[in-house]
Amino acid sequence: MLVSDLVNVRYLSGFTGSNAALLVFSGDTPAVLATDSRYRTQAARQAPDLETAIERACGRHLLGRAVTDGARRIGFESHVVTVDGFDVLAGELGEHCAGAELVRASGRVEALREVKDAGELALLRLACEAADAALADLVQRGGLRPGRTEKEVGRELEALMLEHGADGPSFETIVAAGANSAIPHHRPTDAVLATGDFVKIDFGALVGGYHSDMTRTFVLGTIADWQRDIYALVSDAQRAGREALEVGATLSDVDRAARQIIAAAGYGEHFGHGLGHGVGLQIHEAPGINSAAAGTLLAGSVVTVEPGVYLPDRGGVRIEDTLVVLGDRAPEPLGRRAETTELITRFPKELTVLT
Amino acid sequence: MLVSDLVNVRYLSGFTGSNAALLVFSGDTPAVLATDSRYRTQAARQAPDLETAIERACGRHLLGRAVTDGARRIGFESHVVTVDGFDVLAGELGEHCAGAELVRASGRVEALREVKDAGELALLRLACEAADAALADLVQRGGLRPGRTEKEVGRELEALMLEHGADGPSFETIVAAGANSAIPHHRPTDAVLATGDFVKIDFGALVGGYHSDMTRTFVLGTIADWQRDIYALVSDAQRAGREALEVGATLSDVDRAARQIIAAAGYGEHFGHGLGHGVGLQIHEAPGINSAAAGTLLAGSVVTVEPGVYLPDRGGVRIEDTLVVLGDRAPEPLGRRAETTELITRFPKELTVLT
Repeated sequence: MLVSDLVNVRYLSGFTGSNAALLVFSGDTPAVLATDSRYRTQAARQAPDLETAIERACGRHLLGRAVTDGARRIGFESHVVTVDGFDVLAGELGEHCAGAELVRASGRVEALREVKDAGELALLRLACEAADAALADLVQRGGLRPGRTEKEVGRELEALMLEHGADGPSFETIVAAGANSAIPHHRPTDAVLATGDFVKIDFGALVGGYHSDMTRTFVLGTIADWQRDIYALVSDAQRAGREALEVGATLSDVDRAARQIIAAAGYGEHFGHGLGHGVGLQIHEAPGINSAAAGTLLAGSVVTVEPGVYLPDRGGVRIEDTLVVLGDRAPEPLGRRAETTELITRFPKELTVLT
Repeated sequence: MLVSDLVNVRYLSGFTGSNAALLVFSGDTPAVLATDSRYRTQAARQAPDLETAIERACGRHLLGRAVTDGARRIGFESHVVTVDGFDVLAGELGEHCAGAELVRASGRVEALREVKDAGELALLRLACEAADAALADLVQRGGLRPGRTEKEVGRELEALMLEHGADGPSFETIVAAGANSAIPHHRPTDAVLATGDFVKIDFGALVGGYHSDMTRTFVLGTIADWQRDIYALVSDAQRAGREALEVGATLSDVDRAARQIIAAAGYGEHFGHGLGHGVGLQIHEAPGINSAAAGTLLAGSVVTVEPGVYLPDRGGVRIEDTLVVLGDRAPEPLGRRAETTELITRFPKELTVLT
C-alpha cells in the first residue's frame, strides 16, 4: 500500500517532513520511505530503520518501485490522492506493468490511529496538562477581565502553554467575548471584553505532535438569568455526553445523549455541530461523534465531548472535555459505578463568574 | 466552476472557515458560497454580498445547484478534489442530469493569486516589516547567544513578531544551530547554541492572512574559514538570484543564475532545493522557481530567493529574501540601473559574527 497522507506517514514511520510517501508491504518486506533532498538528514534521524529513497515525486517513485518489485495489487489512499495525482500514479503504472492495479484503501491508517497506544496516551495527557495549567495561570493572574482584547487574551494563553511545556498551540486559539461567543469558531479580534460578557475559550496544546482540545466559558462580573440558564443546560448536556461514552457505544447514540437534552429545552436549532471528535496527531480525527456517525466507540480512543448553545447576537456557551475511552473496566467498587473513561482535561467546569 | 480549495475560496470570497466551497459562474450570475452551520454568522460577516447556502456537504450541494440552474459544463479543481471526492461529485451529477459534465480546471484560481493587487502587497509588506523588526529586537537584546536553546530562540522570536503586529508566525519558525544548520528544514530542539555555531533562522509573520518569509544565518562568537567561504558563496548566489528577477524572466533561468555560482564552486550537490517560490495567502504558492519550472515571472508576483549550502554534520547557510517583481519600470535614473524588484525583507544580510 502506498501511504500518501503526511500524518499517516508520520504515524507509521516517525518522519515529519512536508513531502513524503511510504510504501508498506504485506508480509515481511520492510517499508520504504521516500522524501526529497531537503529532508535527507532529517529522515535518517527520524526513521533510522527505514530505507529512504530521495526523490521529489515520492508517490510515483514508490509505486514504480512496488511494481518493479512484483507487486500486482497496490492500495492507495483514495481519500487523499487528488484526481490529478491519481492520473500521475495511473500513468506510472501503465509505464511499468499493464497487469498491476491500484486499489482504493481509504481510511485504513486512520482506523489504526483511532486506538492510541500507551506512548500516545502519555503525550495526550501531557498536552492536556499543559493546557489546564496555562488556563489556571491565566485566570489566577486576572488575565480574563474587562478592558482586554480577545487577541491579548489568546496570546497570553498561548504563551502560558509554552511555559508549561507545549511545543505550540494545537490550533488557533478561540477567544470569543460577548456576542462573538455565539460564533462557534470565532477567531480572536480586537474586540474588548466587557462586564456581563460570556468569554468562550477553545484551545489546546501540542506536545510531541499530539493535540489537546478543551473549551471553557466564563462570565465576566455579573451574570444574567438567560446566561445562567443556557450554561446549566450545556453543562447537563455535556455530562450526559460524557456518561454515554463507553466501549461499544454507538457514536450517534452518544451524540443523541447530549443533543436530546438541548433539544428538549427548545434550543436544538442553536446546537448546529456534532458532539465531538477523536483527537491525536490531528486535532480532528476518527471517530466523529455526531448524529450521522455509524460506528461504535473503541477502547483506547480519545475523544472530545463539546455541546454548545449559541444565541445569535447575544452569546453562546460551549463546554468541551477530552476523554480516553477505557478498555478493561476495573472491577466496580462497592457502591460506585466503574469508570468507563479517563478525563484528561481537568480544569474545573462549574459556572464561574469572574469578579 | 466549483472552487473547493479553502485558500482559493478565501481569495475569491473573503470567507475563512474550515469547511466551504464556492460556485462561480461565467457571465453575470452571482457566486454562491456554501458552508456548514458552525459558520453561519461568520459567513454573513466575511462575505456579506454573497448568497450563502448552509450545508455540510458543500461541494455536492453546489454542484447539484449548478446543474439544477442549467449549467452543463462545470469546472472542478482536479488538483484539490480527491479520488473519493470526485466520486461523490460524479454521483451527484448522475442523479441530476446525465448530460452535464465535470471539466478539469486545476490551478485556475492559483494563477490569479500569483499577481498581487495593492491591498495584498500592503499586507505582505506589513508581514515582512513585523518579521524584520522582531529579528532586529532579538539580536539587539542579545537573544542569539551561546547557552540558549533553539526552542527558546524560536519562541522569543515568535513572541516579538506578535509585539510587532503579526497575527502569528507564518510557519513553524526554524532555528538551527551548529550541525543542525545543515538540515534545510530543521525544527527547533533543545539543542544549545555554542560559540562557533552557524545559527540559521528561517521564519515569517502572518498579517491579515498573508505570509512573510525570510532566512538569515549568523555566526556566534568566532568564525572559521570554511564558514566564511560558504557564507560568501551563498551571498553571491543570492545576489545573482535577486538580480535575475524581472518581468518575463524564465523561472528556470532565475534558478540557474544562482545555482551555477554554487555549482562552479564545487558545492552543487549541497544545494538540494529550488531557489524560491511565490508567497501570499500560502507560504508556498505559484510561481515555483526551480530548475524544472517552465513559466516566466509576472509583474506583481511576490517571490523568495533562498539559495543554501548545507554540509552534513558541519553546518549550513541559507540567505532568503522576499521581493516584489515590479511591473512598470521607472525611467532609468542617470548612471543607475532601474529597479526591477522591491525588496520587502530588509533585515541586513552581511556576514555577522555575534559577540
